[in-house]
Amino acid sequence: MTDRLTALEARLQLLEDQWAISQLVASYGPLVDAGEADRVAALWTEDGVYDVEDFHMRSRADIETMVRSDAHQGLIGAGCSHFLGPAHVTVDGDSAVAVCESVLLVRHKGRIFPARIGANRFELVRTPQGWQTTCRTTRGLDGSAEVRGLLASTGTR
Amino acid sequence: MTDRLTALEARLQLLEDQWAISQLVASYGPLVDAGEADRVAALWTEDGVYDVEDFHMRSRADIETMVRSDAHQGLIGAGCSHFLGPAHVTVDGDSAVAVCESVLLVRHKGRIFPARIGANRFELVRTPQGWQTTCRTTRGLDGSAEVRGLLASTGTR
Amino acid sequence: MTDRLTALEARLQLLEDQWAISQLVASYGPLVDAGEADRVAALWTEDGVYDVEDFHMRSRADIETMVRSDAHQGLIGAGCSHFLGPAHVTVDGDSAVAVCESVLLVRHKGRIFPARIGANRFELVRTPQGWQTTCRTTRGLDGSAEVRGLLASTGTR
Repeated sequence: MTDRLTALEARLQLLEDQWAISQLVASYGPLVDAGEADRVAALWTEDGVYDVEDFHMRSRADIETMVRSDAHQGLIGAGCSHFLGPAHVTVDGDSAVAVCESVLLVRHKGRIFPARIGANRFELVRTPQGWQTTCRTTRGLDGSAEVRGLLASTGTR
Repeated sequence: MTDRLTALEARLQLLEDQWAISQLVASYGPLVDAGEADRVAALWTEDGVYDVEDFHMRSRADIETMVRSDAHQGLIGAGCSHFLGPAHVTVDGDSAVAVCESVLLVRHKGRIFPARIGANRFELVRTPQGWQTTCRTTRGLDGSAEVRGLLASTGTR
Repeated sequence: MTDRLTALEARLQLLEDQWAISQLVASYGPLVDAGEADRVAALWTEDGVYDVEDFHMRSRADIETMVRSDAHQGLIGAGCSHFLGPAHVTVDGDSAVAVCESVLLVRHKGRIFPARIGANRFELVRTPQGWQTTCRTTRGLDGSAEVRGLLASTGTR
């Protein structure tokens, strides 16, 4: 009986981890489009990296600065959606990888345009405050081998 | 042993609730684009509210009427996708909040256009028939403080 | 106590199945846009069917051939996103159905265009290697009754 309980606890823990990570990824778009700079930054560890073409951020402070930047405020002030797809999540003990595609949609003169399509790879760790991102890499889907490699890391560690 | 069982049951119940709510949100697009008026309406409580810019619906009957309206039938007759992103779900006992972004894509003369991008906030309750929506608010992502506030409610109750 | 354990095991198994299927669907876009022909094919059973307007594939070998085709390689070489929405999953013992909408976004001369919107229905079975697709049907959302029927199968078996 104890063995069955222990097995259940381990299986449930894994599902909880996978769910928590999928929810972290699902919260990024709403929070960044709302301009919630500190809550966006809190999705990363204190020294977490967000490596996206236009910006290379190396801390929560850098990520907050990006959300408060004129470039980002201009986007969300006009109306935009950082639309992330459902994440594929691979947990390995206290670390994990999540991969998804994304579309940036922007409003310009009352019309909507898809401005970018992207590949996203999140590396995460379990912390006392829950799962956090140590490194997120985002690249435009431009057909290059590098970007296709990000997508190909789905299901790997 | 009983304590461990009781703890497991509570954790599993929470995951089941979160999953059920994410699935309710995931079913909206396919059902509304199929024109399944009664099944769309059944995602709400009998007196549930669906507050979207063009329509303010206050019951399942109102929601069915919207699905059967010329406006909606025109959209789905031409081909469209009410594409909702993965929901971020926050459960608090017998009530819950889910937030996601959405894109409406429409077909016009054989081409596809993103017609709208939206912020969606669902308030839900547990009923004997499962989770149902008491109030859904949907607004176009126009850069306004009100709409950004909808998104900022991610993870709150 | 044994009854409670047995009930927990059954509930957890169902959630694990639903999660595994949602993850299979979530991995399709990243893998097909990466060009991972064999891993895409492995989402199906050996004689699995992928019935999409332009192609009618009847095996893993056919699916690999599609991924390696000039048509698909041209798309991913220019940069594209097969963006699938969150799947609605219905499990019935060892078989299951998943439904989602999808958008194909393509890059052309540095700009992004939504080229297609689609309805997707996956029929799946439990195998010793996990859940696999026996038949996936994908159709452009063109307003026809057939395609709306695919979406209406959400939540049915």
